[in-house]
Amino acid sequence: MSMRTLQCFLIVFFFSLVATAQIPSTFNLMPVPTKVEVGAGQLVVDQSFTAISTGQKDIRLDRGIARFLGQVSRQTGMQLNGQPATAFSATLVIRAGNAGRKVQELGEDESYTLEITTSRATLTAPNALGALHGLQTFLQLIEPTPTGFAVPVISIQDQPRFAWRGLLIDVSRHFIPTEVLKRNLDGMAAVKMNVLHWHLSDDEGFRVESKRFPKLHQLGSEGQYYTQAEIRDFVAYARDRGIRVVPEFDMPGHSRSWLAGYPELASMPGPYKAGRIANADTVMDPTRDLTYRFLDKFIGEMTVLFPDAYFHIGGDEVTNKPWDSNPKIQAFIRARGMKNNRDLQAYFNRRLQKIVKQHGKIMMGWDEVLHPDLPKTVVVESWRGQDSLAEAAKQGHGSLLAYGYYLDLMWPAARHYAVDPMTMTKPGAAAALDAEEQKRILGGEACMWAEFITPETIDSRLWPRLAAIAERFWSPQETRDNQSMYRRLDEVSWRLGWLGLNQESNYALMLHRLAGSHDIAALRILADVVEPTKDYTRTEVFPQPPVKSTPLNRLADACRPESTAARQFAELVDTYLQSGSKDSAAEARIRASLVKWRENGANLQPVLDRSFLLAEDKPLSEDLAALAAAGLEALDSIGKNQPLPDALRTGHLAVVERSMKPRANLLVMVAPPIQRLIEATASSH
Amino acid sequence: MSMRTLQCFLIVFFFSLVATAQIPSTFNLMPVPTKVEVGAGQLVVDQSFTAISTGQKDIRLDRGIARFLGQVSRQTGMQLNGQPATAFSATLVIRAGNAGRKVQELGEDESYTLEITTSRATLTAPNALGALHGLQTFLQLIEPTPTGFAVPVISIQDQPRFAWRGLLIDVSRHFIPTEVLKRNLDGMAAVKMNVLHWHLSDDEGFRVESKRFPKLHQLGSEGQYYTQAEIRDFVAYARDRGIRVVPEFDMPGHSRSWLAGYPELASMPGPYKAGRIANADTVMDPTRDLTYRFLDKFIGEMTVLFPDAYFHIGGDEVTNKPWDSNPKIQAFIRARGMKNNRDLQAYFNRRLQKIVKQHGKIMMGWDEVLHPDLPKTVVVESWRGQDSLAEAAKQGHGSLLAYGYYLDLMWPAARHYAVDPMTMTKPGAAAALDAEEQKRILGGEACMWAEFITPETIDSRLWPRLAAIAERFWSPQETRDNQSMYRRLDEVSWRLGWLGLNQESNYALMLHRLAGSHDIAALRILADVVEPTKDYTRTEVFPQPPVKSTPLNRLADACRPESTAARQFAELVDTYLQSGSKDSAAEARIRASLVKWRENGANLQPVLDRSFLLAEDKPLSEDLAALAAAGLEALDSIGKNQPLPDALRTGHLAVVERSMKPRANLLVMVAPPIQRLIEATASSH
Repeated sequence: MSMRTLQCFLIVFFFSLVATAQIPSTFNLMPVPTKVEVGAGQLVVDQSFTAISTGQKDIRLDRGIARFLGQVSRQTGMQLNGQPATAFSATLVIRAGNAGRKVQELGEDESYTLEITTSRATLTAPNALGALHGLQTFLQLIEPTPTGFAVPVISIQDQPRFAWRGLLIDVSRHFIPTEVLKRNLDGMAAVKMNVLHWHLSDDEGFRVESKRFPKLHQLGSEGQYYTQAEIRDFVAYARDRGIRVVPEFDMPGHSRSWLAGYPELASMPGPYKAGRIANADTVMDPTRDLTYRFLDKFIGEMTVLFPDAYFHIGGDEVTNKPWDSNPKIQAFIRARGMKNNRDLQAYFNRRLQKIVKQHGKIMMGWDEVLHPDLPKTVVVESWRGQDSLAEAAKQGHGSLLAYGYYLDLMWPAARHYAVDPMTMTKPGAAAALDAEEQKRILGGEACMWAEFITPETIDSRLWPRLAAIAERFWSPQETRDNQSMYRRLDEVSWRLGWLGLNQESNYALMLHRLAGSHDIAALRILADVVEPTKDYTRTEVFPQPPVKSTPLNRLADACRPESTAARQFAELVDTYLQSGSKDSAAEARIRASLVKWRENGANLQPVLDRSFLLAEDKPLSEDLAALAAAGLEALDSIGKNQPLPDALRTGHLAVVERSMKPRANLLVMVAPPIQRLIEATASSH
Repeated sequence: MSMRTLQCFLIVFFFSLVATAQIPSTFNLMPVPTKVEVGAGQLVVDQSFTAISTGQKDIRLDRGIARFLGQVSRQTGMQLNGQPATAFSATLVIRAGNAGRKVQELGEDESYTLEITTSRATLTAPNALGALHGLQTFLQLIEPTPTGFAVPVISIQDQPRFAWRGLLIDVSRHFIPTEVLKRNLDGMAAVKMNVLHWHLSDDEGFRVESKRFPKLHQLGSEGQYYTQAEIRDFVAYARDRGIRVVPEFDMPGHSRSWLAGYPELASMPGPYKAGRIANADTVMDPTRDLTYRFLDKFIGEMTVLFPDAYFHIGGDEVTNKPWDSNPKIQAFIRARGMKNNRDLQAYFNRRLQKIVKQHGKIMMGWDEVLHPDLPKTVVVESWRGQDSLAEAAKQGHGSLLAYGYYLDLMWPAARHYAVDPMTMTKPGAAAALDAEEQKRILGGEACMWAEFITPETIDSRLWPRLAAIAERFWSPQETRDNQSMYRRLDEVSWRLGWLGLNQESNYALMLHRLAGSHDIAALRILADVVEPTKDYTRTEVFPQPPVKSTPLNRLADACRPESTAARQFAELVDTYLQSGSKDSAAEARIRASLVKWRENGANLQPVLDRSFLLAEDKPLSEDLAALAAAGLEALDSIGKNQPLPDALRTGHLAVVERSMKPRANLLVMVAPPIQRLIEATASSH
């Protein structure tokens, strides 16, 4: 037996293959790696921990390792000795084949291999990007054990499923300072996302300093914009973390903020003021050369500022009115033999694409840009459904899925997690793509539209749900176990606190503000089981259209998009009912929760009376108490195997029905499981 | 009736005089103002809120107002409209008589008057410093009410009791970056403190860049020091907030870190390395001219860097050994007709004082510097007791009290609160100071020595207890009600979260680290009722002497210096026992707590088993469960008016006794009230 064979033998001996879905429950890896083999034992991470890069000098990777060591220290609360390490002495040796492109490119190799034995760890990657990802995996493996902080003996081979794993952040509807965005870049890097899609202009605000056209930011931003120096710094910060920054300047629609300074670009006479109006009447005029001369200069300036190869021109939701009501534009359409406004937008896009290309960039647009005349190099981002994703791929476009990943819709993580760019949800043209067409599907993007976020609340609207989407984009397609996902999501969430993300820590502070008091125990009991209403319902009770200065300081802003307490209660109810009401431990926990909620109504009342911010939540608190009382009766009835009298049941179900309706932009999330309890009382006949 | 008389009449009519101690319980002012008159009604603070300064242009005050408006927005979660205001239209009009001295001086007028009616507020102050304080008062008055955020109609006249209201932060034992110090300056400003005493050098580290003597920071700091640019920026940041920065360079003792680079200053041959050793053997040699030439140049450099008029030379804890063991030094003492080392230190201090004075500064020192030969201009800071404070004042020195305000000793807020610079605790020379002598007592300083703090934990070791000391220094002497203090302290604490102070928000994160888990419910139940051991006991179980790299990531670091839950439980027990066991509401709450603690032992066990960080806490968890079980039996016994059998009582008291002992640097704070319950069972005979 040669040494080599012996080595292989020992590896086989020590490692037991663990399929992706069966990672030991003690691991908190997210996204789940492609391949994981777990061995016996662990590598201690103590104050003597060191890491060294043995490949060629790469300043990005060196900074990444320095940050990594800082995070090891922060996570563990241990100051590291900082002793100089050599390739022989270091605890973790990192070898990256090359430093990666100067401007990070789509499709660079992001794979890595992480081998951990009881004496040391080796991280190998063809490209520094993979090494950066591997460092994040190592950080997620560090746990306190009975004998110290440690990582398990493990072998990981990992690479992303999709090359484009993005997050859109809209900074137009509410301006988000770079300081807030930066901590979210850190969070993205922690879950191996690699594109920030920066939605920099919209009706409500133009957020970039333009030296060529200074009235864009001067008149279009109310002073809330990024200077070019800030942008360069931000792009460098992102690159350091393996994240590309793709700018979006939305045109020809969603462009009211441009028109404040440059009304000559519009299809209708101005003047304009940045802001949302009920039926957006602001679309650029694509028939005039002036428009293209302006855009050529503007795009020339922006493509220098933003080094990424891709340039997003928006192209969504172009309303008909401005073009319809301008006789010159309609004459232009007829004169050029176009059929309609849609053809005119295609004309605009073709000319835009030439400009973008002349400045060395690849154009992207939302799926409205799809048109037979659209050059195939344009990348299409599908936000209206999965059909357009397949359609774009079929037509020869690179394409991205945004539909299903809108975090501002306040969906539960599992709903986003179930959306897969490769799983077509509808039959028809989209159902079957050949291999070549499938390759054109580059990945996807989570989207954080900013009508209802502020710098204070954005972290809690992104996290932890974004980590589930990140896993969808990175991990093997068969990674689909919701239970595992939720368990790991909970763990990821508090660990993101080490990066300064405040989705956990700001919760109490916002509740204190609402109550105006140190004592938030009763308010927290309610807040823990409510969620903001879903989809686009919130606007209904806000100024229509919403204005960016509407204070976002209500319970709907403080509470989590997804209630862990309600999810766990629902699971408990299902467990109990599926046990044929025999699981007495589940029954006791259900009862304890119901008693707590029933009693909370009276406890919370004086708090709700005191603060105008909470007055609107009184019906919710009363309903929670009533639901809990009904649930307790149902629980008694099930336990005694005595059906509830019909009149009582009907009354209880009326409480449930009332409780299911949104009030104060909130939903009481324990209503459905309590409904199941009440309904179960009938089957005890 | 003239208009003037009518005005006075109306004021008397609308305002009812409220004595300091009787501020309505809805107010959360801390420190309590000197004089408060509360009227009827309120002034709404909504998005149209504006503030304007109508006095002469003062850039410091303008920045203060801008920060104030930012805080209004942050506290309320409302974006302010930011409309331009005039003296007629502004909600809050600020008039400061003058901008204050360029370098803030001791004794500048810090008073202010704040008048709030239902339509507007007026803040008047002779000096911008008072205006800054008044803005903090205004911020503390903003509360959510049933009709919106508002401040009450009120009239406040306020000024500090003491001119020197300081906080010492030791950055030698553990380096604290300026970013962390800055948020604590914000916190100090919020409670009207005005001096940061910056303990910049000690045996363990020399923290200032010296261009004259670069080996001081190069060899004395392990790379952890402030650059001169950082210091200038920091001093300016403090000045903006009405805070003076007084540097301390401790000499001739506590100077090991200096000697790493400059062993020629020492009384014994080197070499030296920065760090604590068991019996500090590092004292400068005061007999050589070289020492004074060095200090002259060094102090010359530092007095330029630090603009404050005061310069603290330390002077504490000079050990005898280095001087005793150096024959030349002993010969010097004899040759000059001195009696002992103490005289030699006085000689050193006199020469030092001349140097400090030549550089335009007033020297300060710890109370060891007191000596008949000490020039009367030297300010003496008493850390060893209150006697030296009075003694210094009697001898003609300005003096400060630090004794009783050591936050690192982990005392409860009430214990610090009870210490008053003007209340002499012992009879004798100190007992009676005449008015002239009393005036020499300038104020006091809270002290945060840094053996057991890190940048992560410092906020929770300072706050909220520091706010109680701030009140002692600012508010009238008769402000002494602990119940009011604790209520307001709770309120102040979460509000400080708006400034980024993390004493509330980092608690959960540290518990998560300890448990290595999202689920910290059981751990929190234990953590909520334990406190770090008091005084200097912690070092006993740490490396002796402690080293700065010892990880501070245990439960003793995560838990609060003072347990609110334990304090409230103790109050509840006293209420119940004083009611003759008739208060059934109190009884129910006591019982609920005891049941929770009794059951927590088993729940917490697996968590403690899993993490090496928590293993040491097992006896505490077991004792809490046992205490609770004993407490429940006692409660039953009291309720039934049936004495516990003696054997049982004795057993229970043994549990209490065991629980009172510190383990893992922790104390179970509910042991004393449970002891009182058990003891009460005897009186039911």
